[in-house]
Amino acid sequence: MPDFNALTPALLVQLEAIVGPAHVATAQRVPAEEYATYGQDHTEDLHFAPDVVLTPGTPEEISEIMRLCHAARVPVTARGAGTGLSGGALPVHHGVVLRMARFNKILQIDERNLQATVEPGVVTEAFQNAVQAVGLFYPPDPASKGSCFLGGNLSQSSGGPKAVKYGVTKDYVLNLQVVLPTGEIIWTGANTLKNATGYNITQLMVGSEGTLGIVTKAVFRLLPYPKQNILMLVPFRQEAQAAEAVSAVFRAGIVPSGMEFMEREAIAWSSDYLKIPLTLPEDIKAHLLIELDGQDLEYLYKEAEQVYEVLERYDVGEILLADTATQKDELWRIRRNIGNSVRYNSVYKEEDTVVPRAELPALLAGVKEIGARYGFKTVCYGHAGDGNLHVNIIRGDLDDEKWNVGLREPISEIFRLCVRLGGTISGEHGIGLVQKGYIGIALPDINLNLMRGIKQVFDPHGIMNPGKIF
Amino acid sequence: MPDFNALTPALLVQLEAIVGPAHVATAQRVPAEEYATYGQDHTEDLHFAPDVVLTPGTPEEISEIMRLCHAARVPVTARGAGTGLSGGALPVHHGVVLRMARFNKILQIDERNLQATVEPGVVTEAFQNAVQAVGLFYPPDPASKGSCFLGGNLSQSSGGPKAVKYGVTKDYVLNLQVVLPTGEIIWTGANTLKNATGYNITQLMVGSEGTLGIVTKAVFRLLPYPKQNILMLVPFRQEAQAAEAVSAVFRAGIVPSGMEFMEREAIAWSSDYLKIPLTLPEDIKAHLLIELDGQDLEYLYKEAEQVYEVLERYDVGEILLADTATQKDELWRIRRNIGNSVRYNSVYKEEDTVVPRAELPALLAGVKEIGARYGFKTVCYGHAGDGNLHVNIIRGDLDDEKWNVGLREPISEIFRLCVRLGGTISGEHGIGLVQKGYIGIALPDINLNLMRGIKQVFDPHGIMNPGKIF
Repeated sequence: MPDFNALTPALLVQLEAIVGPAHVATAQRVPAEEYATYGQDHTEDLHFAPDVVLTPGTPEEISEIMRLCHAARVPVTARGAGTGLSGGALPVHHGVVLRMARFNKILQIDERNLQATVEPGVVTEAFQNAVQAVGLFYPPDPASKGSCFLGGNLSQSSGGPKAVKYGVTKDYVLNLQVVLPTGEIIWTGANTLKNATGYNITQLMVGSEGTLGIVTKAVFRLLPYPKQNILMLVPFRQEAQAAEAVSAVFRAGIVPSGMEFMEREAIAWSSDYLKIPLTLPEDIKAHLLIELDGQDLEYLYKEAEQVYEVLERYDVGEILLADTATQKDELWRIRRNIGNSVRYNSVYKEEDTVVPRAELPALLAGVKEIGARYGFKTVCYGHAGDGNLHVNIIRGDLDDEKWNVGLREPISEIFRLCVRLGGTISGEHGIGLVQKGYIGIALPDINLNLMRGIKQVFDPHGIMNPGKIF
Repeated sequence: MPDFNALTPALLVQLEAIVGPAHVATAQRVPAEEYATYGQDHTEDLHFAPDVVLTPGTPEEISEIMRLCHAARVPVTARGAGTGLSGGALPVHHGVVLRMARFNKILQIDERNLQATVEPGVVTEAFQNAVQAVGLFYPPDPASKGSCFLGGNLSQSSGGPKAVKYGVTKDYVLNLQVVLPTGEIIWTGANTLKNATGYNITQLMVGSEGTLGIVTKAVFRLLPYPKQNILMLVPFRQEAQAAEAVSAVFRAGIVPSGMEFMEREAIAWSSDYLKIPLTLPEDIKAHLLIELDGQDLEYLYKEAEQVYEVLERYDVGEILLADTATQKDELWRIRRNIGNSVRYNSVYKEEDTVVPRAELPALLAGVKEIGARYGFKTVCYGHAGDGNLHVNIIRGDLDDEKWNVGLREPISEIFRLCVRLGGTISGEHGIGLVQKGYIGIALPDINLNLMRGIKQVFDPHGIMNPGKIF
């Protein structure tokens, strides 16, 4: 554990000179309620207060901040929109929080090259809309896309429903401008689709949860926008069959653009939360939300027929084929708001389990069995096409002891099951703070020591988002 | 520069005990001609003799070899099929060459999860054929796919014609078993489509040119095999227009599965070399080979019509639409054998330039201008959809001085042009030995020092494929 120093008044004066007084917040200067938000994200009910919150405006300002903090051994934690689910943005060792909110510009949409250069404080959905306006497509779409920042997506390599066909954030990053913990500003690669020039520093940065540097610009590749899509909601009478059908669709040669699993309670809570009426017959235990997309509707209907043929092998209820844009939007809103509805209902812990997709039935059965054995309830949903199941452990009436300590063993069991099935402990939320204690289940010491060694190369004083991952 | 030791007779005895005498080759034990092949690859006419060539059979044997060589500070260079174009497999500091030829098994094709586990000595095309036999698709297809090894593809993140739609080797790797330079055996990740569990060691290994460890198993993701394709050969009267048309096709919303550029001489040399007759009217200066693929032929014809509409804007000759499997095969063989035909005609240096695809006309014009100014001839071809242009500098009657020294400045000019256009100095061949002197054009010291630091973490004695990249 590196030795950190607290922020001194002298350092605060220097930092203020860099960003200007309007961009400095401290517990003394802003209302307590506002200041508290900078120490929180969407992870459980955790809170850690920073010594100061800076909102820099340029990479050069961040560079100067990093040089000072590196020399003074004061921790620095970058903060996007605060929608993270593993505590990655929490300043657990206090020090400086760098709010990236002013890095909010789309610098260029290059229609000739199907690329865009953006700042990390751009909201994901705003970016998607901007490129769609010129016929282009940026697929990664986490559930929080309406508020999360691209910078946060980069730090966790966020996914979302479209990942099954289009991949996750890492698959769209060509090049990153990064301020290193020691203050240097680098570009990690080139603005090209291929690059075999030295080690892949770009992909090392993506998913490193803000522990290796601060992204200040990103160049993303884009695709032509798929003009057509078909969306269907498929009710299953057995959860395991819903999970099995996922694999069967792929084996039939179809790559859907969305393949989402929702157990009964997930869809029920979310439609209640949104006040969208939805018929849920008693015998329905789970749903798959399946989207097909492309440029040609006629061809998509052919694909949809093939999907129907696959589904006929299972015990499914009446399939709802969304036939208006409004209906599609409602179904997607239900899916996207499961997390919010769970949060609305109860404090919860979310485990971002991931396995090879055909192992999903085994994972789901295992989670339920472990929950029954230890006496807790889970609400499960997620990106079934990727084998990525979000397991929400509901606090309900669990006491503090059980909630804070008693869940460690069953969560470990769930993670050990993931690893046994060929999977790992996080698919898209990252390790951050809350999964740190479990990383040894997925990665042995030799792997962790390599990661620690890399961290040391980038950040010799360990000031960059300390207390995360390992 | 680390200090290396030569192989001692005592160490040779120990190494022989590990792999068995049948799997040890030295200059004394095998014919000179055979031994010479282990010091060469497809890069120019370079040759470096190893002290010993070992052909291990298991990761555990490699682990023992690495422990001994690490302790003795003897260099180790892994060797695939020796088809590399940047000298990555050349044992420039002598020592041990590890031939991976016995790692030639496809261990599992997992049809449930669309994944396969393979050893690195499997020939790329053999793997493609094996998965195709069960309806699956492994897209990366370097020109040498009939002889190159998957391990070599991993070390350079090889691409090929299909990269434009399907990405390169790195995009298919889920997990790697690696023997570290210090002898430990690790898995880098998990067998999942998504993974946000610590730093991306998998992608750090891919493209690291055998300098960080030795891949002993790889888990690849697969796709459903696209059953249909359309292939067209489009002749252009102006080279620049061929390069411009590439971008226009993408902007029309089409993502071809191949989009290859061949200047006149490239296609002429290759068809001569293969003795495939091809009509080449006097006024044709370049060709695009465009492939569309998918599951539905009817839809592909719609797309082809859209491609024709785009091409009508340019000064093109008669488009050849390949209408039999044989004709398609011939066209692809011509494209794939350009490198061989150039090698057959003359000693050459190949520069693996890459730029954002719309900058291809500027790159091509620049290369020709530089060639004219310095007095050398180039034959250019490559993956236009990726902006990846292979520039072959033909030795012809250049004298030794001009060939060995005089080309440094014009090659530097070509690479500086790539970087100015947003590109870099290698798209898919790697830096290896021959581009090492130019890497500073693409990456400043701060980037290179990060890479050196990472190398030091993995390989404290620097014995793993020394003398490459930086």
